[in-house]
Amino acid sequence: MIRTAIVGYGNLGRGAEAAIAAAPDMELTAVFTRRSPETLKICTPDVPVYAYDELPAKAKDIDVVILCAGSATDLPVMTPEVAKIVTVVDSFDTHAHIPEQFSSVDSAAKEGKNIAVMSTGWDPGLFSIARLYANIALPAGNDYTFWGRGVSQGHSDAIRRIPGVIDARQYTVPIESAVERVRAGEDPSLTTREKHLRECYVVAEEGADLDAIREAIVTMPNYFADNDTTVEFITEEELLRDHAGLPHGGSVIRSGKTGWNQEYRDTVEFSLKLDSNPFFTGSVMVSCARAAYRMHAEGQVGCRTMFDIPPAYLSPLSGEELRAHLL
Amino acid sequence: MIRTAIVGYGNLGRGAEAAIAAAPDMELTAVFTRRSPETLKICTPDVPVYAYDELPAKAKDIDVVILCAGSATDLPVMTPEVAKIVTVVDSFDTHAHIPEQFSSVDSAAKEGKNIAVMSTGWDPGLFSIARLYANIALPAGNDYTFWGRGVSQGHSDAIRRIPGVIDARQYTVPIESAVERVRAGEDPSLTTREKHLRECYVVAEEGADLDAIREAIVTMPNYFADNDTTVEFITEEELLRDHAGLPHGGSVIRSGKTGWNQEYRDTVEFSLKLDSNPFFTGSVMVSCARAAYRMHAEGQVGCRTMFDIPPAYLSPLSGEELRAHLL
Repeated sequence: MIRTAIVGYGNLGRGAEAAIAAAPDMELTAVFTRRSPETLKICTPDVPVYAYDELPAKAKDIDVVILCAGSATDLPVMTPEVAKIVTVVDSFDTHAHIPEQFSSVDSAAKEGKNIAVMSTGWDPGLFSIARLYANIALPAGNDYTFWGRGVSQGHSDAIRRIPGVIDARQYTVPIESAVERVRAGEDPSLTTREKHLRECYVVAEEGADLDAIREAIVTMPNYFADNDTTVEFITEEELLRDHAGLPHGGSVIRSGKTGWNQEYRDTVEFSLKLDSNPFFTGSVMVSCARAAYRMHAEGQVGCRTMFDIPPAYLSPLSGEELRAHLL
Repeated sequence: MIRTAIVGYGNLGRGAEAAIAAAPDMELTAVFTRRSPETLKICTPDVPVYAYDELPAKAKDIDVVILCAGSATDLPVMTPEVAKIVTVVDSFDTHAHIPEQFSSVDSAAKEGKNIAVMSTGWDPGLFSIARLYANIALPAGNDYTFWGRGVSQGHSDAIRRIPGVIDARQYTVPIESAVERVRAGEDPSLTTREKHLRECYVVAEEGADLDAIREAIVTMPNYFADNDTTVEFITEEELLRDHAGLPHGGSVIRSGKTGWNQEYRDTVEFSLKLDSNPFFTGSVMVSCARAAYRMHAEGQVGCRTMFDIPPAYLSPLSGEELRAHLL
């Protein structure tokens, strides 16, 4: 059994926990938290919860840590910190900072003689893989990624930081006519506004200036200013009743040409439709933990991404079983 | 430059040739054929055509052979034969015989200290990979594969063997209502008949018994008897005018559940829409040739499938470029 531990017990940590429980070859040995350990009630029976500071002392009994923390401020510090101690998997998703994160995690993992698989999940992760396979099959072409319909936690958080806002939920919505043009092989040039709508559901404080909140949202640079954005004010009860879930999904589409005179047009598409983003992401992370364990057992050290993992390493099935049933 | 050679110069060989010409890191050094070499006119200038028997004598100047021959009778003999001499990639697609083919190719490749990547292309190949990633992300679920709309060369050949038939084209057509039920997460049990229709366009000899041909087609076991099959008789001119292409495609869909109580339903789908099946397949094979070369350069020997190839090995881009642009 591969001995795993989870660091961070939010939605993603709970998703990873369920995936470990479902894996035939893995066990959860501990959960580490930066909250008070005694306040956490986890789902797996008889598994201890420790303070994050205790990780170095417990690491000798752990094969792989599944790091379930935020990309904005946590993972840039924590992934290198943990990679010095034990093999680790994270879901770092700040695309612009991937090269520098890779570099710092790689140094730390080599220092600790561990494997660190960064940026696992679905984007980055399965979507990245889909882009890569589509690119090798169709070197001449264009990539498109559409997200949603689904809850963007980063955008929801950005709304919550506006004065007068109690809670908020933001849905990223792909513009179906744009998706259809891409699928039809039109190779359109699409602006940010032409690809996605943003739908916001906001709970405001009593007496708050709703027009000011709406204006603060729709003009917010990087988050909303470049999209058509709708804002609807709802009650806290409505938010809990109608927007409690964390659904997500999207499509990676590559449209390209083959043939001596590029006379053939092909389209490759990979799509997800998820009721629960964190449970699905947790499941992918746990498969990457299995692969990390196997690469480390071979003597490999350093930082890896899903691009570096032979697909078979992700599965609990043997090579024979995979060839017989999935090839 | 990776020095490649193509064995077999039919549609697939021409597809591989175009893909090699488009690759920045590969060159075509020779084409080998079992026909008379002087009868072949290939597209790449200044590349020699040799008889297949000359392959052993020329192998020292070739890094990877791309074997473009048929799965039914050619590849069971040729892939082990070539794997003893040089690193090789094939597109063996007889799913039921994959385990025994793997075993014989693995022995031959180890004997020759070469890598052999078998069953590359899109099914087996990219579709297999899609099934594997969908399975690791959703261990609890069901797989569905729909093919088409596209030309099945095996089924077209089967019609051509019927007495009185001059030529034929068979389209495999997925039944859209079945695809929609799967996409909606219904997890239906589908018979062969409920998944695909078969459309046949047949050129018959003058005076042939058309009813007898139709009956021979629709009752043919393994090929048509289990599907609803339509047969339309057309002229040779119509066949050449309207059915000259080899389009294909299809979808791999996995529908599964996550959550402690399997309360979340997710769907993963990978789809292809191809104007030219052999040009796309050739392109995937050539990427696998790149990976085969790299694995062999590391000292690996034996038989591999796309399950064993780290995705990054398929691409001409560096790890840095892949992480910066596709992750």
